[in-house]
Amino acid sequence: MSFYQLGEKTLKVSMQLFALNRKNLLQKLRNQPDLPKSSIVLLEGGKSTTRYCSDHEDVFRQESYFHWCFGVTEPDFYGAIEVDTGNSILFAPLLPAEYAIWMGKIQPASYFKQKYEVDQVFFTNQISKILKQKNPSFLLTLYGLNTDSGNYSKEAHFEGIENFKINNKILHPNITECRVYKTDLELEVLRYTNKISSEAHKEVMKNIKPGLYEFQMESIFQDYCYRFGGMRHMSYTCICATGNNGSVLHYGHAGAPNDKRLNENDLCLFDMGGEYYCYASDITCTFPSNGKFSPRQKIIYEATLRANRAVLNAVKPGVTWYDMHLLADRVILEDLKAAGLLVGEVNEMLEHRISALFFPHGLGHMLGIDTHDVGGYPDNTQRPKPSGLKSLRTTRKLEKGMVLTIEPGVYFIDYLLDEAFKDPVKSKFLVKEEIEKYRGIGGVRIEDNIFITENGAELMTDVPRTVEEIEDYMQKNNIFLKQ
Amino acid sequence: MSFYQLGEKTLKVSMQLFALNRKNLLQKLRNQPDLPKSSIVLLEGGKSTTRYCSDHEDVFRQESYFHWCFGVTEPDFYGAIEVDTGNSILFAPLLPAEYAIWMGKIQPASYFKQKYEVDQVFFTNQISKILKQKNPSFLLTLYGLNTDSGNYSKEAHFEGIENFKINNKILHPNITECRVYKTDLELEVLRYTNKISSEAHKEVMKNIKPGLYEFQMESIFQDYCYRFGGMRHMSYTCICATGNNGSVLHYGHAGAPNDKRLNENDLCLFDMGGEYYCYASDITCTFPSNGKFSPRQKIIYEATLRANRAVLNAVKPGVTWYDMHLLADRVILEDLKAAGLLVGEVNEMLEHRISALFFPHGLGHMLGIDTHDVGGYPDNTQRPKPSGLKSLRTTRKLEKGMVLTIEPGVYFIDYLLDEAFKDPVKSKFLVKEEIEKYRGIGGVRIEDNIFITENGAELMTDVPRTVEEIEDYMQKNNIFLKQ
Ligand SMILES: [Mn+2]
Ligand SMILES: [Mn+2]
Repeated sequence: MSFYQLGEKTLKVSMQLFALNRKNLLQKLRNQPDLPKSSIVLLEGGKSTTRYCSDHEDVFRQESYFHWCFGVTEPDFYGAIEVDTGNSILFAPLLPAEYAIWMGKIQPASYFKQKYEVDQVFFTNQISKILKQKNPSFLLTLYGLNTDSGNYSKEAHFEGIENFKINNKILHPNITECRVYKTDLELEVLRYTNKISSEAHKEVMKNIKPGLYEFQMESIFQDYCYRFGGMRHMSYTCICATGNNGSVLHYGHAGAPNDKRLNENDLCLFDMGGEYYCYASDITCTFPSNGKFSPRQKIIYEATLRANRAVLNAVKPGVTWYDMHLLADRVILEDLKAAGLLVGEVNEMLEHRISALFFPHGLGHMLGIDTHDVGGYPDNTQRPKPSGLKSLRTTRKLEKGMVLTIEPGVYFIDYLLDEAFKDPVKSKFLVKEEIEKYRGIGGVRIEDNIFITENGAELMTDVPRTVEEIEDYMQKNNIFLKQ
Repeated sequence: MSFYQLGEKTLKVSMQLFALNRKNLLQKLRNQPDLPKSSIVLLEGGKSTTRYCSDHEDVFRQESYFHWCFGVTEPDFYGAIEVDTGNSILFAPLLPAEYAIWMGKIQPASYFKQKYEVDQVFFTNQISKILKQKNPSFLLTLYGLNTDSGNYSKEAHFEGIENFKINNKILHPNITECRVYKTDLELEVLRYTNKISSEAHKEVMKNIKPGLYEFQMESIFQDYCYRFGGMRHMSYTCICATGNNGSVLHYGHAGAPNDKRLNENDLCLFDMGGEYYCYASDITCTFPSNGKFSPRQKIIYEATLRANRAVLNAVKPGVTWYDMHLLADRVILEDLKAAGLLVGEVNEMLEHRISALFFPHGLGHMLGIDTHDVGGYPDNTQRPKPSGLKSLRTTRKLEKGMVLTIEPGVYFIDYLLDEAFKDPVKSKFLVKEEIEKYRGIGGVRIEDNIFITENGAELMTDVPRTVEEIEDYMQKNNIFLKQ
């Protein structure tokens, strides 16, 4: 039994995870009426890359579909699966003798066969020959749209592929659909990524104080994830937004690089998740830099938490994610109205998409090997048009086995508010003088990762969530407060 | 006066650094007899990229030539310099209105003009128009070989460039040559990267003990660099090689991911350097996991250190890097002979490249914006052929202003030793039974970063170096030893 692990206290992931994924894929393919007999699935793994024209090698991270099928951690592999028999094959890169000096021991095929528990291993210089011997009707290659990025997957290519018949239509929709339903083995990994990332968020809460910088919180988080969880990669660039930066949804990139100093009582919106063996987590904690919510912070925090929990309690097989977004919208509108920021009928506000002024992004997304995992819009599903809803990364009917984030938010975004105040229809719902008091507060996002069960959902994230829990946690554990 | 800084305790880097770089470039270009009148240097900055087909955005790092000219931290810029007048121009990406919601405030041209202290700023949709107005004879684009990677730089391209005359010959060799000589302003940054990375190495020495894992040492290093030095990127993938892994020169990549547990008295070869504002450092410390050198570890450590110090004392303007490599070779051979691993005449050993069996890589390389900085083999300089020497990234005559690494090493690499024992000529210098006693010890590398001065060199790295210093440092500062 082979498994992946980094260090001794981290999760052991069995290679059976990938064997099961392949089995599920084959089962799905075999149910397709248009599947040609004796075809072979062919995938090309991620390549090693260098930065611009230099010899600076990026730390390799496997391509996600390839990881799902084979769990290979090294670059420059190919993989194949014979659909009729299930025979699995890896092609390892043929390395020059000098590799032994610079990069490490050159492993024989038997090493990879044992490490990845596939049926056969050859080297990449033999792809054409080996596949010819198997005489497939078609090679099934991966070509299709990623509905989050708008990019298409890179189809497998090797020297001699022109001598094979290719079908690039059947694989992508079916493997994508398989990735939507997480197996128990995958779930175990996602529970682990949530466990470690939850702990890392708490580590940040322990070590934060006004006067420090956002990027220092990013560093503490990353160090915890890697040092104690074996997570060399983050699932995505850490968003460490404090104060008004919380109103920039994807803060933290090179143009807004977590470089602000924390003020006293800044609302801290920290959206960070570690990745283990290419499986993601995506967690957002929002809390005040000094451990104590101001009255206004509390109002928008509790509105967001009530929306989060309303969705958490409502999700189960059969409900649509589209309706869940509307549910979060409604709760947020109700609470903002109760707090005096809005006037009028909530149903009318919903119709005019007033919620999207404060909560302009989607409620959440599939989570798996990619943070924004694939399968949100299968086939020709149309994206919704109304604001807020148009940012949804899926509108699907929930089913057992799906893993999603629930991440409602309430933000005060100058651009959106300025436009809305000018709008004769929208502005009549807005209590301008009250809303203006919240400008500069930033925003709240509360993001949990859940697994859809038979009757509801399992909450995988484990961090302090209510105002009381957060204030209590910081009072007791923050190294600057607890003295 | 604009400057770059991350946090308040990190280095302030003035935009004058880039103004001076541009000035030096223009001066050099104007001295070229084949420079066409009224030409314009045109560079394309690095683009934002996503991982495979997904929407996972990589943390942006600027392309090195572009950074050298403009210091721009954001992706998707272009930059131009009018050679006759020195007028500097940036073209910022035109961002959609939605950017304000997701990514942050959309800045006007005036913001970038002030931030980067250039003469003019436009948006990228105007490149063609603005450049046409300036009526250049030629656009000078960047095209040329990176002698470390074998890759060619990506030439600037924009819609409408076909309406201009292009010269892609003159810019690359001249800007590359400019990058070889570091200005005082650049030197200040490299001193800073050395200072922080030296401290981070010491932080690792403080927190290490047998039983921990290599990747945990990587995490400690990275956290220190980022949290206390503002270094979001490493200069290169951390090499945390312990025990026999030290004999794998570029250990630490995805195929050998710093995943070993530290044994008692493992030799730890840690080659790690942080990057600040795109300027590199590249430092290797070697020391025993338990703070106490064994007799054999001491022998090879001291041979390597003597080689390092012999070179440090010999470097000055006028000597060639090729000769410095031979000097290190000689010292290592002398010491290995004295220790009983070799027999025969050192001169003969040098001739038969016996040193390259233990020290198969180059003595060091240029260091700057790239870790393996450009300019090692200008024009048509030939690379040497003999083993060891053929891995040199430069053989140049040293001159004031160059920054290099000095990094001799002594390794016991199975592949090289096995081949050598079979070689009738080489084997007669080798005392097999003595060498066999060192198998599995891994290796030693001692890497410092230096700046060539008028009469010698400035050592920028500051870590414990002698056996006594290291043992003393660990005894006094290691948290597990000092109790
Ligand atoms: Mn998310
Ligand atoms: Mn180096």
